[in-house]
Amino acid sequence: MKSIKVGLLGVGNVGAGTFSVLRRNQEEIRRRAGRGIEIVAVSARNLERAKERTEGQCKVVADPFEIVNDPEIDIVVELIGGYDTAKELVMQAIANGKHVVTANKALLALHGTEIFAAAQAKGVMVAFEAAVAGGIPIIKALREGLTANRIEWIAGIINGTTNFILSEMRDKGLDFATVLKEAQRLGYAEADPTFDIEGVDAAHKATILSAIAFGIPVQFDKAHIEGITKLQAIDIKYAEQLGYRIKLLGIARRAKVEGGEGIELRVHPTLIPAKRLIANVEGAMNAVLVQGDAIGATMYYGKGAGPEPTASAVIADLVDITRLATADPEHRVPHLAFQPNAMTDIKILPMADITTCYYLRMTVADRPGVLAELTRILADGSISIDAMMQKEPAEGETHTDIILLTHLTQEKNVVAAIDKIEALSSVVGKVTKIRLENLA
Amino acid sequence: MKSIKVGLLGVGNVGAGTFSVLRRNQEEIRRRAGRGIEIVAVSARNLERAKERTEGQCKVVADPFEIVNDPEIDIVVELIGGYDTAKELVMQAIANGKHVVTANKALLALHGTEIFAAAQAKGVMVAFEAAVAGGIPIIKALREGLTANRIEWIAGIINGTTNFILSEMRDKGLDFATVLKEAQRLGYAEADPTFDIEGVDAAHKATILSAIAFGIPVQFDKAHIEGITKLQAIDIKYAEQLGYRIKLLGIARRAKVEGGEGIELRVHPTLIPAKRLIANVEGAMNAVLVQGDAIGATMYYGKGAGPEPTASAVIADLVDITRLATADPEHRVPHLAFQPNAMTDIKILPMADITTCYYLRMTVADRPGVLAELTRILADGSISIDAMMQKEPAEGETHTDIILLTHLTQEKNVVAAIDKIEALSSVVGKVTKIRLENLA
Repeated sequence: MKSIKVGLLGVGNVGAGTFSVLRRNQEEIRRRAGRGIEIVAVSARNLERAKERTEGQCKVVADPFEIVNDPEIDIVVELIGGYDTAKELVMQAIANGKHVVTANKALLALHGTEIFAAAQAKGVMVAFEAAVAGGIPIIKALREGLTANRIEWIAGIINGTTNFILSEMRDKGLDFATVLKEAQRLGYAEADPTFDIEGVDAAHKATILSAIAFGIPVQFDKAHIEGITKLQAIDIKYAEQLGYRIKLLGIARRAKVEGGEGIELRVHPTLIPAKRLIANVEGAMNAVLVQGDAIGATMYYGKGAGPEPTASAVIADLVDITRLATADPEHRVPHLAFQPNAMTDIKILPMADITTCYYLRMTVADRPGVLAELTRILADGSISIDAMMQKEPAEGETHTDIILLTHLTQEKNVVAAIDKIEALSSVVGKVTKIRLENLA
Repeated sequence: MKSIKVGLLGVGNVGAGTFSVLRRNQEEIRRRAGRGIEIVAVSARNLERAKERTEGQCKVVADPFEIVNDPEIDIVVELIGGYDTAKELVMQAIANGKHVVTANKALLALHGTEIFAAAQAKGVMVAFEAAVAGGIPIIKALREGLTANRIEWIAGIINGTTNFILSEMRDKGLDFATVLKEAQRLGYAEADPTFDIEGVDAAHKATILSAIAFGIPVQFDKAHIEGITKLQAIDIKYAEQLGYRIKLLGIARRAKVEGGEGIELRVHPTLIPAKRLIANVEGAMNAVLVQGDAIGATMYYGKGAGPEPTASAVIADLVDITRLATADPEHRVPHLAFQPNAMTDIKILPMADITTCYYLRMTVADRPGVLAELTRILADGSISIDAMMQKEPAEGETHTDIILLTHLTQEKNVVAAIDKIEALSSVVGKVTKIRLENLA
């Protein structure tokens, strides 16, 4: 049978990884797919490097539009990243009737609705396994493996850079800035790490996961995003003493609210019980925990980045497209897991309306009555306390740390209580608030 | 679009779970699949119970052949278990041009080759996600999610009963027989637990995994099978002191051997470093660790049994069949992951030829020269020692325990060395041998 012809936009690390895995395992892949998958052309800004990386095995061009307009090419793989040009290229490829594979989570989180609609209208597929959690087949698990389930929530460690930093902070007791420098030196963080450490990358991925879990459109602008830049070593230490680890989680949850249902979509540092399997995912590894009503909890673990793990997902998409290309378009796996005419409009909740548990740390004067004032404020706000830890003041100090863990409570109640606590004369400075998920 | 009509053979726990999940989530499933999936008939020995469980919503018959011969039915779900009748029904359904979904790992591990060949010839699909690790979509991950990879090895906790027993033995320091009784009382072990505790069930599943990982036929008769019935509490304790946990693993590994490659296919109690994520999978949970050359290690975790987790896998298969039914048969996912004409005949190795690490425990006289004798025998067998622990003899005892961990070595060398060690006058009784996998 005739090989599937692939054009690659971008021959950076992932592009080079895709090229070399496809080449190394071409026999293994052909034995599975039933036909060859062949990269016939690549586009790159650095032509010399691209020629070197593809070893003269395929055409190398400077203009990516040459690839998306090449009638010989069946599938376009977009690996250049960013928004504007990437979007234009993807839309042009679709318009030309080509299937698309992309690893571009930013593009899909922002423009997925438009892109998937265009693909649907044209009868082509846009596959994006590589966009979330690298090589881990989490998109496949959610869209196909768990179709029987009403998904209740997803909680994922979906950014390797921040998980590496948090693991190092805990292991070595170092502060954020020191570990970030080390991570940059080791190649775990980029020169400009903003998207990773501010939680934006995780929010792109969580947005995609929320859409395929609940059948809602991608709505990145509604995601709540907090990174790890303000996280202090002392909170990691206190969390540990209380039996918790702090991870940057991307969370998408179906929540009961007044008048029906809402979706929580949020990325923030989160305390997790240390005994949970996902709390023990260390270094740059990724893991996604999914709760379905029939299956209960399942977890998917692996490398969330890197040339070959990402290539693994890109190539799996190529094989899937090869297989499904002959199926009736209406029988293919829908882009966002649900049929386009069966999406829902459950609203994404503002943070004030979400419900979770909280870790609160405050510095208070070491004198009688302080605890009574604090607990009165919490009781008035209907916030019930699950655990409390008061540290002895250091030698010669007149202030001490109090740490509280709350039961489930609404964010707005906690925010209001914190305002009142910070206004107390016995409380110094700001209250540190970190959300806590039991993931049970 | 017309609903897909399903006939269910057997309305035991999994059948009832499938019925109730399909009913509860019918809207969610239809929104994904694009059409309804409807159980129109079931067969059961206990007609009254079956009528109760299906709440008068479908036809209930005593003779399962009525279902496989019913022209109205598109897909037959086989949930009766066992070999003879189940095989006859599945073959008849295939002959009638019906797709089949089965959770019957025993049937596929023994007769898969014949069944898949018949399905292939008839152009129908036999889906079996529920046969391995319950609801965890591990078959899908291996057959579709990791197609880019040359799979190097798989190691799985794929029997919940034994994992529950081992977790309890470690937690509570109890012996096997005591915990087995407790597991039976709690419903984690069956009245006749032989298939579980002797490793047969895990070997059925490992056999299926080996086929789809490496493109070899199912060869249950070549699997090496050891259960947990002989495992002693003392070994779990010593393993813990050395930083290891003992799990019953199903292992399928591609191994270099003289003259090429072989496959290791084995189920046995195994020491694993306690810090590995999979070592922390407790209770009745399942987890499968897969090592691919591009992606590295990935792990899949969840409930490996139970009515609704298993139903989750059965229904995912129903949706997949609904989707792929219109694709060209040669473009569907191949039953054993590789195209039928692209299977290989890499041989499954006899145990003597496998290579792994070992935990050896022996009771020796507490006198000079014993260790010299032991280490001489090991050195002569080219077995190198990774760690050693010698316990002080108990008050008034003249014998003591020595525990050795070896580096990688071939099984036959270890067996030969154990023979020599047991012949020493300073060694009392048998040497306990447990294999050790680093899973790195």
